Amino acid sequence: MKKLFLALLILALHGVSSVVSAQPGRPVDESSLPGKRGPLNVRNARYPRLLPDNRMEFRVVAPEASKVQIDLGKKYDLTRDDNGVWTGITEPLTPGFHYYFLIIDGVQVADPASESFYGCSMMSSGVEIPYPEGDNRFYISDVPHGDVRMMRYFSTTSGDWRRVYIYCPPGYESSDSTYPVLYLQHGGGEDERGWSQQGRTDIIMDNLIAAGEATPMLVVMADGNTPDFERELLTDCIPFIEKNFRVRTDRESRALAGLSMGGIHTLNTGIPNLDKFAYLGVFSSGWWANPTPFGMPHDTEKYYQILKDNKDKFNNDLKVFWLSMGGPEDIAFDNCRIMRGRLDEIGINYDYFETPGGHTWPVWRESLYHFAPLLFK
Amino acid sequence: MKKLFLALLILALHGVSSVVSAQPGRPVDESSLPGKRGPLNVRNARYPRLLPDNRMEFRVVAPEASKVQIDLGKKYDLTRDDNGVWTGITEPLTPGFHYYFLIIDGVQVADPASESFYGCSMMSSGVEIPYPEGDNRFYISDVPHGDVRMMRYFSTTSGDWRRVYIYCPPGYESSDSTYPVLYLQHGGGEDERGWSQQGRTDIIMDNLIAAGEATPMLVVMADGNTPDFERELLTDCIPFIEKNFRVRTDRESRALAGLSMGGIHTLNTGIPNLDKFAYLGVFSSGWWANPTPFGMPHDTEKYYQILKDNKDKFNNDLKVFWLSMGGPEDIAFDNCRIMRGRLDEIGINYDYFETPGGHTWPVWRESLYHFAPLLFK
Repeated sequence: MKKLFLALLILALHGVSSVVSAQPGRPVDESSLPGKRGPLNVRNARYPRLLPDNRMEFRVVAPEASKVQIDLGKKYDLTRDDNGVWTGITEPLTPGFHYYFLIIDGVQVADPASESFYGCSMMSSGVEIPYPEGDNRFYISDVPHGDVRMMRYFSTTSGDWRRVYIYCPPGYESSDSTYPVLYLQHGGGEDERGWSQQGRTDIIMDNLIAAGEATPMLVVMADGNTPDFERELLTDCIPFIEKNFRVRTDRESRALAGLSMGGIHTLNTGIPNLDKFAYLGVFSSGWWANPTPFGMPHDTEKYYQILKDNKDKFNNDLKVFWLSMGGPEDIAFDNCRIMRGRLDEIGINYDYFETPGGHTWPVWRESLYHFAPLLFK
Repeated sequence: MKKLFLALLILALHGVSSVVSAQPGRPVDESSLPGKRGPLNVRNARYPRLLPDNRMEFRVVAPEASKVQIDLGKKYDLTRDDNGVWTGITEPLTPGFHYYFLIIDGVQVADPASESFYGCSMMSSGVEIPYPEGDNRFYISDVPHGDVRMMRYFSTTSGDWRRVYIYCPPGYESSDSTYPVLYLQHGGGEDERGWSQQGRTDIIMDNLIAAGEATPMLVVMADGNTPDFERELLTDCIPFIEKNFRVRTDRESRALAGLSMGGIHTLNTGIPNLDKFAYLGVFSSGWWANPTPFGMPHDTEKYYQILKDNKDKFNNDLKVFWLSMGGPEDIAFDNCRIMRGRLDEIGINYDYFETPGGHTWPVWRESLYHFAPLLFK
C-alpha cells in the first residue's frame, strides 16, 4: 500500500487520480466511453456509466472470477470478455437513489467505485438516476442554503453516545428567530445518515423554502435503532435539541415523521403523545396486519384502542396526519391499506398520498417533498 | 430485495438486524465468538472481530470463491473451511484508523460489514484499533462538544458546487465571540470528509479544548481536489467561511495545515501568502526532491526562492512553521528530510515532530493533536 499511496499523491498533485484500470498519470479520454460517469461515482471512477435512457453500464475487472453480478434488487449477470473484463447493462432505472451491490463469485460486497451508504444493514453502494429534464426539486440549485450539523449526545435511554444530524434552514445563523422542528426518521437497516445522504433532505428543504412552499424549520434526523424509541426521542433527543437550538417547544411547532420502520416509530410515539406533536407523517408504512410475517408479536391493538378512546381529540388536535405509499408494489402496501381500513372504521381523519416506485428512496424523497409544505402553517 | 427489506423491517423492529450469516429473528450469542466486534463494524455485524492483542479476525462466507484475501497494506490470505467460510487473523495492528479492502478472487472491494471511508481514491473499508488503556485523546468523552457542519458553496475557481465541513467549538452557538480558524486539508485520494471521519477532528478538538490545551477555534475541512488550490482557498473557500461564521479575519487568526498532498497545498499556498496566514502545519509531506518519481514536473524551486528572498520576514512573521513525519517508514520521509536540509541551508526556522506509524491516519491524528495547541496563543 506504500506504493499505492505514493502513486496517489503523485496523481492527486497532477489533478488526476484513478480507480480501476486507469493507468497512473495518464488521464483517460472519456469521449470514447458510452454515456457519462454515474452521478455517485467517486472522483474519477469512469464506471459505472449512466446511459442516456437511464440504464447503467457496469464494468468490473475480474480475470480470476467465475461469476460477477450486480444486485439492484434485480440481479444482473455481467459478461466476461477475453481479458477478464466483465460488463453488463441494466434495464432503465427509475429516477432517484437506488442501493446496489457487486456480487463476486457469490459474495455480496460494496463497489469501491461508487459512494457508500448505510442501508440494508450494510454499507451498500448507491446509484443516482437523473430526474426528468426540468424537475430540479432534488438537485442543488442557486438558492440560499442551510447546513446539516452532526452532533453527539449521550442517551440515557440507550446508554451510549449517539450521533444526530440537524438540518438548519438558511438564515438560522443570522437571525434570532425561533423555529419549528420536524423529527424525521429513517427506515430499518438504516441510521441517522439516511435522510441526509440518501434522502437529500437539505437540498429538498432549501428548494422548498426558497420557493416559499415550506416554512423554515429544523429537521432533526436521529438514530432510530433503539428498542425504546419513544423514550429515547422524548427524554433524550428532543431535550438535547431544545437545549442547543433556538426552537419552539409547543406541540404545534413539532412534527414527527418517518419511513418504513420510522413510520411505525412515528405511529407508536405520536399517537400516545398528542400533547407533544401536532403533525404526523407515515411514509411507506403502517401497523402490522394480522397475521404478521414470522408470527412476530406486536401490540398494535393498544394503539387502535387509544384512537378509539380519543377519536374526537385526535381529529381536532392533529393538524396533519399524512400517510404515503409507494404504490401497490410497496412491500408495506397491505399493512397501510389494512390500517387505513381500521382508521376509517374508527373515524380517524388522515390524508393519503400515493406515488409509484415501491419501497425505495425515490418514493421517500417525494414523500418529504409533499409532506414538508403542510407543516407549521 | 423486496424480501430483504421486509426482513430488515421486521428485524429492526425487534432491535436486531443482521449481516452475514446471522439467522433472521435469532439474535446471536456473541459469547461464543472470539474477542469483540470491530469498533467500525456496522450495527450488528459480528465480524471482523477485534482480538485482545489488537489482531483482527476476518470471516467471509464465500463458498463459490477460490481465493479470499484482506488487504491492510499487507495482504492476508484467508483459509477456507468445508462449508466455504473463509477466516484469517492479522498480525497485531497499531492503534488508530486503517484502510482495508476485501479481495474476492482478485477483485478489490469494500466490505459491507464495516464502515466505508473515501480514501485511496475509492470507497475503502476501515478498522479502528484501540489506543492503549488510559489514552483517551481520540475517544469521545464527557466534555462539552462542538459540532461539525456540512455546507455547500459554489466555487468560481472550480466551477462546481463544493462541500465543506466545519468544526465549530463548544460555545460557538451561545456566544457572540469571534474565533480564529484552522484550514485543515486531507491527502491525495481523499476529500473533505477525511479529517472529520478518519481523523476524528471534532473529538480531538473537543478533548483539547476541554483540557485547556487548545484555544477554541473553527476547523475548516475543504475539498482540496482542485488544480488551483491556492486560488480556490483564497477566493472561494475563505470568503465563504468569513461571510457565514463569526471568525476573525486577521492573519494571526488564520492557520493552514494539511497531510501529504494537503501538506504540499499548505506549502504552496502558505509561503506566497504570509499576509494571510501566521501558522503553517505540514504533516507527512515535503516538497518533491529531485529527481521526482515518474519524472513529474514541479516548480518547487520557485518557493525556495521566495523563502530566500524573504528569509527574515518569514522567520519574523510566521508564528509557527511545524513539520511532522510518521518516522522513516513514512513514504514522504525523504522529501521532508531533503526539504528540511534546504530550509536549514536558507536559514528558515521550523519545528519538527516525528512519531512512528508511517504515512497513515494514526500519525495524522497525532499531528493534529500536537499542532492545534500551538495555534492562536
